[in-house]
Formats: sequence, structure tokens, C-alpha cells
Amino acid sequence: MKTALLSSLLITSTIMAASLKQDAQNAGLQAIPESKTELYKLIDNPKNPITYAKVQLGKQLFFDPRLSKSGFISCNSCHNLMAGGTDNIEAAVGHKWRVNPHHLNSPTVFNAVFASSQFWDGRDPDLEKQAQGPIQAAPEMAATKKHVKDVVNSIPEYVKSFKKAYGQDVKINFTKITDTIATFERTLVTPSRFDKFLTSCDKALSKQEKKGLKTFIDKGCATCHNGVALGGQMMAFGVVAKYKYADIGDFHGDSNSLVKVPTLRNITQTAPYFHNGAVKTLKEAIQEMGRIQLGVKITDTEAKDIEVFFGALEGSKPHLGKVSLPNSTDKTPKPNLN
Amino acid sequence: MKTALLSSLLITSTIMAASLKQDAQNAGLQAIPESKTELYKLIDNPKNPITYAKVQLGKQLFFDPRLSKSGFISCNSCHNLMAGGTDNIEAAVGHKWRVNPHHLNSPTVFNAVFASSQFWDGRDPDLEKQAQGPIQAAPEMAATKKHVKDVVNSIPEYVKSFKKAYGQDVKINFTKITDTIATFERTLVTPSRFDKFLTSCDKALSKQEKKGLKTFIDKGCATCHNGVALGGQMMAFGVVAKYKYADIGDFHGDSNSLVKVPTLRNITQTAPYFHNGAVKTLKEAIQEMGRIQLGVKITDTEAKDIEVFFGALEGSKPHLGKVSLPNSTDKTPKPNLN
Repeated sequence: MKTALLSSLLITSTIMAASLKQDAQNAGLQAIPESKTELYKLIDNPKNPITYAKVQLGKQLFFDPRLSKSGFISCNSCHNLMAGGTDNIEAAVGHKWRVNPHHLNSPTVFNAVFASSQFWDGRDPDLEKQAQGPIQAAPEMAATKKHVKDVVNSIPEYVKSFKKAYGQDVKINFTKITDTIATFERTLVTPSRFDKFLTSCDKALSKQEKKGLKTFIDKGCATCHNGVALGGQMMAFGVVAKYKYADIGDFHGDSNSLVKVPTLRNITQTAPYFHNGAVKTLKEAIQEMGRIQLGVKITDTEAKDIEVFFGALEGSKPHLGKVSLPNSTDKTPKPNLN
Repeated sequence: MKTALLSSLLITSTIMAASLKQDAQNAGLQAIPESKTELYKLIDNPKNPITYAKVQLGKQLFFDPRLSKSGFISCNSCHNLMAGGTDNIEAAVGHKWRVNPHHLNSPTVFNAVFASSQFWDGRDPDLEKQAQGPIQAAPEMAATKKHVKDVVNSIPEYVKSFKKAYGQDVKINFTKITDTIATFERTLVTPSRFDKFLTSCDKALSKQEKKGLKTFIDKGCATCHNGVALGGQMMAFGVVAKYKYADIGDFHGDSNSLVKVPTLRNITQTAPYFHNGAVKTLKEAIQEMGRIQLGVKITDTEAKDIEVFFGALEGSKPHLGKVSLPNSTDKTPKPNLN
């Protein structure tokens, strides 16, 4: 009897899992492919193909504060790879402690490769173009193209690595440098238990996580948060009501200031939320989204279930190995705090 | 004949190496012990013993910007472990982009454990006490003790790690946190080819490096730069002449503003030089030291040889493994840029 009951429960749970997976698929949610070949199809850029040498070099450049005018800020300062790929600060801070003039929150670099456009306003098509922005932006790294080029060319180990990555005749200019950073960033994907659930293992999600996923789908969240990144595919903001904190910063959600749907992967690690970082908790973020995007009330219990499901989107971060920045020379441009 | 000549050259070179090692020993230069037991005798603090659990936790705390008021600055911001353990900026910059009010350069954290006192003015006796300073200093991390304590206690994974490191009854206060950071810092030693030369291998140094070491000793540099760290053992400044840039900052080298002799380990990676970071190149640093501390002229050739020898003091940095910062909770104090 007992065995029969257990076995029947197991069958029920298997059917439920299968049906939930089907729902997720219908809603457009996709797993990060387990197969390397499949994954590369998604993350590679034929115009700037991923190679081991470029990734290793890009990783060093990502962590190198010498690319900034001050010598104090690196890509990692705002996109902290030891945390959720962000700075966890309301609005980004940069050169001379200037706060982002649009009061924009640093988006995570993890899984950014899956987005169909970059930046909150979606103005750049890919990571290669995106990487050129913050390095030059006055309130971020505040460097000129020349500064970046001169720094890299003054460091023999970097020159050697560029030759290794691109061939002896490589011309190390600003674009080559930012392309290399982008190549590294393309590899920053974080497979999670949610992916395990979708691809192979029914038990990868807890009961409450499954309930949260079901609620997430049923409420309509996946209308915008879909694809591999559960986001990053469209611009949408204040669809049915005005965002509570729309007046902080200048992205109000009208036709001139649409906001890109952010990825939900690692969302438990990237507080505060929304483009202007004004929402402090996931609970508020979830309920506010229901109100302004879907016109539905999400109860506290439903929000909790969804939040618990989001925990399953916390992915394992790539092991960076030993990162060691090559030595400057007397020719390396000096840091300038002003 | 040829064999006899080679063999005679080999004997000569062995004798020369032995004699140089003897000179180094007489001058008070010491190797980082190869034996772990011997090393631990030097780096451990009986009042705050090194354990694996504390080192792992201290490493996370060292990289955690949430310990700062702004949430933007970690210990690693100014003591970059991916570089030479410094920020390579003239005078340290910190909270609200304030420059160090004494115009002091961030000293390297690598091998700081070997110094008999901490800070440029030598005011603190050990790393435990030192670690309390920059976290609270207004122009550095600008945090209160309460902020630091509240951050750590609000993060369940940190609480768990503290219990693992200190027992279930641990009270996680500011001192316990900074002690743990100090424990990690005690392990940041960087054995180099110079140590290999002193302890085992005549060929660990090139001909020019040996010549540089000889010059270094003969000129009298080891009078101050001695011990395991080749520095860190005494206060000395402007002994025979006034430092060229004494007027930058308020450490002029009189009896009120003596400067601690810095370590020379990894000195090729920690430009700019001197307590006020006013000297840009190693060549100038070496020659200026000869002039103001020893009253001797160091020629360009001699300076070059010494500089080449310094290259052999570049040590291998500890492999940090995967550093991953634990998640904040809704209770974690919010970053404050003001």
C-alpha cells in the first residue's frame, strides 16, 4: 500500500513537473544550453569570435583600473564579478565620485550576452559596442580612446598577449581592446538550478520554487521576462500604470524613455532594483511590476513564491582562476584623479 | 682543456655566489622561509592565530565593498591583490573621491606581515590594529564600527562562517571582523627568485641581478632595507639631505614626521614611490635614496643594476581561488555615497 502510494505520488509529481516545464516552454522561457556547442551558438559573435587567448586577455583588461583616467576604476568596480555582476548601489558612481546623471543603476554583466540590446535604453546592439561606453563616459571611467590605447601599448605583457590573440601584425587600438573585453564578457553565463530543472532534473526545484515559477507564468511575468536571460529581449515600461519612482532620474517610461526588460538571472544578488535603483526589495519589485506592467495585484504570498523561485535563478559563476595584472612601465600614462 | 676551463668557471661562479650570499646575510637580508613551519613562526599572531576558516572568511571581507559607507570601496580598492598590493596612485583616493589628507601613498599589503610596525608613521604595531584604520577613516572607507558590524551580521553566510571560524558563541563585532581580515593579510607573502637564490639555487639570479644585489649591499641600502621584507623594520628619512619632494604632504622627514622604511619586495609593481608617491620611476627612487639617506652618488649604471635586482624581488602571489561574496538581505545597511 505504502509503496503504491509513494509511487503514485511520484507519478503525480513527475506529471506536474512535465506540465510545468511545458508551461515554461510555452511562455518562452529557455535554459542555458548544457552542451558547449549549443551554448557557443548563442554567445559567440562571428565578427569577434571567442577564443581562449582573447578571453584570458579580456579578463585582465576587465579588472584593470589603469584603463580609467583615475587608475582607480575598472569594469569590475561597477560590474563586480565576485558579487552579482553589479555594484549593488542605487545609481552608479564613477570618476570624481560623480553619480550617473540619469540616475541609472549598473546592470549585471552576467548573462548580458543573451540580451538583444545593451544599456537600459537599449541603444547598443552588442557587448562589443557597449564596452566602449563606460570606459569613455565622464561620470564612469572617464578615459579617452588614446589613454586606453596608450596604457595597453605601454605594457609589454599586454602587447604580447594581443599578438598571441590576434597575430603578430595586430594593431592595438581602442576598438581591439574593447572587443577583447566584450569577448570575455560573452563567457559570463551562469547556469542555475532552473536550467537543470528545464533540461534534466525534476527535483532541481523545490516545491515552493515550482509554485513560484507557476505563479510567475500565470501572472504573465514571462510576457516580458522570457528567453534565455528571462529578460533582455524588449523595451517596456509603465505599460498600464505609472512607476512609483518614475520621477527619480529621467527615464519616466514614456515613449522617449523606455526601459529594457532586465534579466532575472541572479536577481537575488543585484539589488537595488529597476533602472533607477529606487526599489530596495524583491518583494516590492515583483508587486510593482504586476501593478504597472500587467495591471494585476500580486499578493504577498504570491510575491514570496516568485521570490523563492528567483533564488533558483542564482547561477554558478565562472571560476576566474588567478588574475594577475601585468606591470606598468615608465611609459604607462599616469593616473589622473582630476 | 675546454672541460677544465668550464669546470674552473663553474667553481668561480659557485664561490662568487656563496660569497654574495654571505654578504647578503651579513647585511641582514633574509629569505622568506621555504618551510611552512618556519614561515608560520614568522607570520602567525598567537593572539589571533591563523586558521584556514579565518583566512577564507578574511579574504571575502577583504574584497567586500559593503564594509565601506559607500558600498563602493573595499580593502582591495587600494591594496589591489591582482597588482602589487597597491593602487599605483600617487596619494590614496577614497570616499567621496577625497585624496589622502597627508598625501600618503597606499603601501602594499603583500609582505606587510613582516614589518615591525604598520602605516607610514609606524603608529600601529600589527595588521590587526592596522585593519581598523582605513575602514573607518573618512577619506578612505568612511564606515562606522556599527555599520561594519551590522553589515556582517545581516548576511547569514557571513554569520555561519564566523561561527565556523570562532565557534558557535562568537560575538561578531568590529574587532572580530578586522582581526579576521588581518589573518588573511598575514598569509599574503610572496616568495621570489631572490629567496630561491638565498636558500637553494645559485642560478636563481641572473648575472646582472647578482651585480645589482652586490651594489645594493655595497652602497649601504641594506642598512635600512633589511630583514625578510627588505624594509619595514625602522623609521628613517632625510638622514643626510632633504628629500626632493619633502614639501608634498606633511611628512617632511623631521623628527615629527619620520617615515617607515618600506618593503622592497614587489617594488617593481608598486610605483609611484615614497610615502607621498611623488617619485615616478625606480631609477629616481634609487638615486634619491642614495643622496638623502646615504649621502652617496648612485650612477645611472649602478641604479640600473639595482633596479634589475629588484625585478628578482617580484614574488609569486597567493592563488586566491574563487572569491564569491555572500548575498545581502533586506536587513543589510544600504550604501550611502554621501
